Amino acid sequence: MYADLTVNQFLDALASKEPVPGGGSGAALGGALAAALVSMVCNLTIGKKGYEAVEREMEGLLVESEAIRKELPQLLEADTQAYARVMEAYRMPRASEEEKQAREAAMQERLKEAAEVPLRIAERCARVVALALPAARMGNKWAVSDAGVGALLAEASLQSALLNVEINLASIKDAAYVEGMRQRMVSLVEEAVRTKAEVMEAVHRTING
Amino acid sequence: MYADLTVNQFLDALASKEPVPGGGSGAALGGALAAALVSMVCNLTIGKKGYEAVEREMEGLLVESEAIRKELPQLLEADTQAYARVMEAYRMPRASEEEKQAREAAMQERLKEAAEVPLRIAERCARVVALALPAARMGNKWAVSDAGVGALLAEASLQSALLNVEINLASIKDAAYVEGMRQRMVSLVEEAVRTKAEVMEAVHRTING
Repeated sequence: MYADLTVNQFLDALASKEPVPGGGSGAALGGALAAALVSMVCNLTIGKKGYEAVEREMEGLLVESEAIRKELPQLLEADTQAYARVMEAYRMPRASEEEKQAREAAMQERLKEAAEVPLRIAERCARVVALALPAARMGNKWAVSDAGVGALLAEASLQSALLNVEINLASIKDAAYVEGMRQRMVSLVEEAVRTKAEVMEAVHRTING
Repeated sequence: MYADLTVNQFLDALASKEPVPGGGSGAALGGALAAALVSMVCNLTIGKKGYEAVEREMEGLLVESEAIRKELPQLLEADTQAYARVMEAYRMPRASEEEKQAREAAMQERLKEAAEVPLRIAERCARVVALALPAARMGNKWAVSDAGVGALLAEASLQSALLNVEINLASIKDAAYVEGMRQRMVSLVEEAVRTKAEVMEAVHRTING
């Protein structure tokens, strides 16, 4: 598992000329960092004097942010595997007409898988942006900037994951499929951009208020 | 060093109720991920057929992106130390008027240090956004989305670092100092937002073009 590498080893692997880990992995890890920060805000709020009224809600947030934080490193792994499967299909023989057709069919199928993993990463990141909002509004005010960083990194990771969806969609010939994916992408982005702005407003109000 | 933890251990530490590592660390690591992705694009371009004309430029980019990638984990460390020094001053005795004054003077000095480290992180992230632009425009087109992810994560990390500058500025009483810092923050953000948009334009043109 990539998440068992040290941070420095992972950065080395990312910077290297190997195509994986790459941008999709960066998106997944960025989302995991963001989810961890939302968890931190919850952990700094639960049991703290003055925050008794929101404790139940913070416990609910924490369960979800922790689940996403633990899922994203697995999606990072799934993303590198989906890429490897596309490359495997890409290298299939194409001497005869039959081989060409088999290769193309495999490519199309695996490109869809390779688009769906980063879409799943994007969906989890969107959820982290949404969790950052109650964390910023109701969480420990000394940690409000951490909720803000969570929203910023989660939104950028979402957009990053979607670039990886897009790059796969560009080679997929099933127009109805591509259109359906694009619609999901647009609604994810719109919602996340709006929510991030709300988080930042809450953060600035608390910092400067 | 935090960067010697495994990715999972670092995420555990970030999510915990300990205030460090926190948002500043997330910003530094996000910036390091972004720098590594710019390095990856350079590494996937240097020596590749068809990219001979930009090889020299890519080598220059790589030297800089690698330097920043290696500096950011050190700034992460410096950020946690600066925070610890503020907390140390915060806990100084304040029984007598003299003690109160000594404590306040120490606080003010250390808050400035604690604002300057994330500003340095933000400056490095701004540089990564700038490096992502030639990487996206001239680098290996198969890796263009990686340059895009680099710009997205670097810009979000810059904004994240600035939240950590802001939270310290809110307690600093030297108005001229605060004003000077705010001006540097504004120009960093404006430049980075503009450059990120240019990177994304180049990325979408290459993906869909």
